[in-house]
Order: sequence, then structure tokens, then C-alpha cells
Amino acid sequence: MMKLKVYTDRMSQPSRAIIIFCKMNRIDFEEVRIDLAKAQQRSPEFQEINPMRQVPAIVDGRFKLFESHAILRYLVCTFPGVPDNWYPADVSNRARIEAILDWHHSNLRRGSASLVFNSVLAPKFGLPLNLEAAKEAEKILDSSISKIEGIWLKGNSKFLLGNFQPSIADLSLVCEIMQLELLDKKDRERILNPHKKILQWIENVKVATNPHFEEVHAVLYKVRAKLHSNPSSISGESIKSGPKVKLSPKL
Amino acid sequence: MMKLKVYTDRMSQPSRAIIIFCKMNRIDFEEVRIDLAKAQQRSPEFQEINPMRQVPAIVDGRFKLFESHAILRYLVCTFPGVPDNWYPADVSNRARIEAILDWHHSNLRRGSASLVFNSVLAPKFGLPLNLEAAKEAEKILDSSISKIEGIWLKGNSKFLLGNFQPSIADLSLVCEIMQLELLDKKDRERILNPHKKILQWIENVKVATNPHFEEVHAVLYKVRAKLHSNPSSISGESIKSGPKVKLSPKL
Repeated sequence: MMKLKVYTDRMSQPSRAIIIFCKMNRIDFEEVRIDLAKAQQRSPEFQEINPMRQVPAIVDGRFKLFESHAILRYLVCTFPGVPDNWYPADVSNRARIEAILDWHHSNLRRGSASLVFNSVLAPKFGLPLNLEAAKEAEKILDSSISKIEGIWLKGNSKFLLGNFQPSIADLSLVCEIMQLELLDKKDRERILNPHKKILQWIENVKVATNPHFEEVHAVLYKVRAKLHSNPSSISGESIKSGPKVKLSPKL
Repeated sequence: MMKLKVYTDRMSQPSRAIIIFCKMNRIDFEEVRIDLAKAQQRSPEFQEINPMRQVPAIVDGRFKLFESHAILRYLVCTFPGVPDNWYPADVSNRARIEAILDWHHSNLRRGSASLVFNSVLAPKFGLPLNLEAAKEAEKILDSSISKIEGIWLKGNSKFLLGNFQPSIADLSLVCEIMQLELLDKKDRERILNPHKKILQWIENVKVATNPHFEEVHAVLYKVRAKLHSNPSSISGESIKSGPKVKLSPKL
């Protein structure tokens, strides 16, 4: 039987979640890199894997699947030996996790991904920064972080919903928040530091999934270092109407 | 045992999907109306039901749940006798449906909900129209509709993924598209008419779920009639910087 293939770019939050999940659960897989900065997701070959042209995607034998939450659920149900905490069999506990996963798309993910893209990453993809869009995104992000803290991190629980072990929702949401590492340090601290429970929760997920967590995020830290050693790429000014920045072949 | 309570506003796309699903599957429930135009979702009583202050939400005994896809999955798993087509037990078939449900949030829903809100509904909620946001939303909507048609409605299948019976993904996505009924007829036709397979698919879901489908959408048709008999509320001009329109107590 062919090994599970996982198509990823580790700069993509949901790609990282899938890789960490596979490593944590000793799922044997081959990681195939699809370099988003080189637009490899637009190749005809990859379109055969995922017609939506996004990472992550998987191929398991003849079965192809995309959307990271769908992939996580599929892996839990297909590969034996995944501990119940990741995606509980109990209907009510599972439903509460589904609610977080579904909520994520239009809230935390929308805010975080748009903020990072529009305030830092866009030039790497040949697009201008858009600080107006970034400002709107930060509002959604702030509101999302407050809701996670107030609703799902009540009390002193280590993980969402008062759980003692992480679920796929903890993994997906924390991998998303990690994208804020790409922001200027001051911006990241302004957003996250008022939320002590969020900071502790990120740390708890790291500890529970290390060494895989830090290994999979290493690329992110490298790009962060490169971004912030080159002040011109993070000028802090809107260059919405300015010239397009060329795709960096180094990213 | 207490009857299932379903908190809805039939002007909300996912609320309608839940009601139609319950009626189709003879799930005994009490519908509790939360009037969004009167901001009833912001009441302290409703916040106890759903801290996110959104409809739909359910209370089943002591269990509370929000997010419509999570609710649909929960209902399938909790109420006996729901036919397998709605949410197949087969892992691969289920995973393909999960991918559609997850994709929906940042694509079809984001485009459709934002277009309708910013071009028609905003004044009903005391906010100005925003035709710039509506234009951006229409791009996302157009792209989403093309992808549904090209990827999931291949061939002559009646429902998504080549299925002969509808799934919860068909129901969720078609209830979303129905929101376009609130647009000016010309706008709706401009968006949908180039997509014959989408039109046929909407019709197929209607036929498969009637009389419930039309009964649950009756409110939408009424609001449409009211909106378009009063040209001042759909002037077609941006009133972004204009005065706020008062909440209509009649909606």
C-alpha cells in the first residue's frame, strides 16, 4: 500500500497543523512541498491533487482530500491508535470541538491570515501591502482572541473546553495564531500580551506537541528573522497604490 | 425529556438549513425565534444559550450548541432514523462532505452574506450600505459559484459530489445561495443565470426538501417583496457616508 502523501507549505498555518498531527500520532507519511511563494499550487500537476489549488491536501491511495479540518477528521478515523482526546468519539464532546472548528474560519483565521498577509507577507507574493485591510483584519482578530479566552479558556484549563489534553481544535487554532510571529514584535505583543490565558494556552499546546511543534515552525522563525532584518519590507506605511514588489525567489 | 429547542431567525441562511433538516427528518423540535433585526441575539437571556450571540443555536436537554454545521452533524448522530445520504457513515464519503462544509465558510458564505448585507440589508440593521464592500464580495461569490459548478457538480448529477440524494452540504450551501433572492432581480440574474448547473441544483434541492423548503423560505420572499417595493431602500447608490437608516421595526 502506498504511503500517505501530505502536500504542504510550512508557511501555511493549516499545513503545519496537519504535519504536527501526523508526527504526534506516528502516522507514516511523505511530505510533498508545494511552494506557495513560487505559485506551485497553480501547477497543472497540483490541480489534479486539489482543484481548489490550496495547501494542505492529501492523497491516501486513490483518495484525495483538501481542507485541513476535513483532513484531520479523516486521519483520526482512518489511522488506528489516535488517542481519543484529539477528536472524541463522544457525540457531545465531539460536537463542541466541531463548533470551534467551524467558528474558526470566519473569525480567528479570517482576522489573523488577513492581518499577516496585508501587513507583512503580500510583497512576497508580488502584491502591495494594504494597511487599511490589515486594520480591519486586526479588529476581527482582537474580537476572536477575546472570545476564545472568554468562552473556551474559562478557569484554569490547559486546553480549549476545559480539556486536559489537546484536540484538533487546539492544534488548528494555535497554528493559526503562530502566524502572528511574522508581525513586527511590537505589533504581536500589542495584540497578544493583554491575553495571558491565550499566551499560556499557546505554550501548553507547544509543550504537548514538542519537539514536533518547534521543528515544524522552524521555517516560520527563519522567515521572521529575514523579514525583520530588512526594514524596507516592513516599512509600516501603506504602499497600496505603490509599485508591485517582485516575488522574492528566496522565500 | 424536554423537546429539542432550535433558536432561529428565518432570515438567517444557516437557521433555515437547520429547520428544513429537522422537518425533513421528523425531528420533534420547538422553534424559538430570535429576531436579529431587533438585536434579540444580544439579550442576556440569549447569551446564556449562545455566548457568540448568533443564530442558529440549539438546546437539547442540558446540552447547548452553536455553529450550524456542528448542529447538523450533532442532529444526525443523536436523532435516530436520519437517512445515510445526509451525512454518510462511510469515512471517505463523509470526508468529501466535510471538505465542502469547511470550504463553504471562507468562500460561498463569505461572498454571498457580505454581498447581500452590504448591498441590501445593512439599513435594516441601522448601518449604511457599502457598495465597495459589496463589489469585493461579489468577486468572492462569483469565484465560489464557478468552483462549485466546476468541481462538485460535474456531469449530470442532481447533487454535490455526484450524489443522487442531498447531503447536509447541499442543504447548507443552497440555503446560502437563496439569500441572493434579496438582491435586485437584475443583479441576481446577472450572477446566477450564466450557471445553468447551479440553477438546476438549487431546483433539485428544493424539490427534494419540499414542502418544507418553500415554507421555511416564505419569510425571505416576503422581505424581498417589501424591499423592492420601496425603491429608496435599494437606491443603488453608496450611502456609506450618509446618515444611518433607522432599524425597521417591521422586518
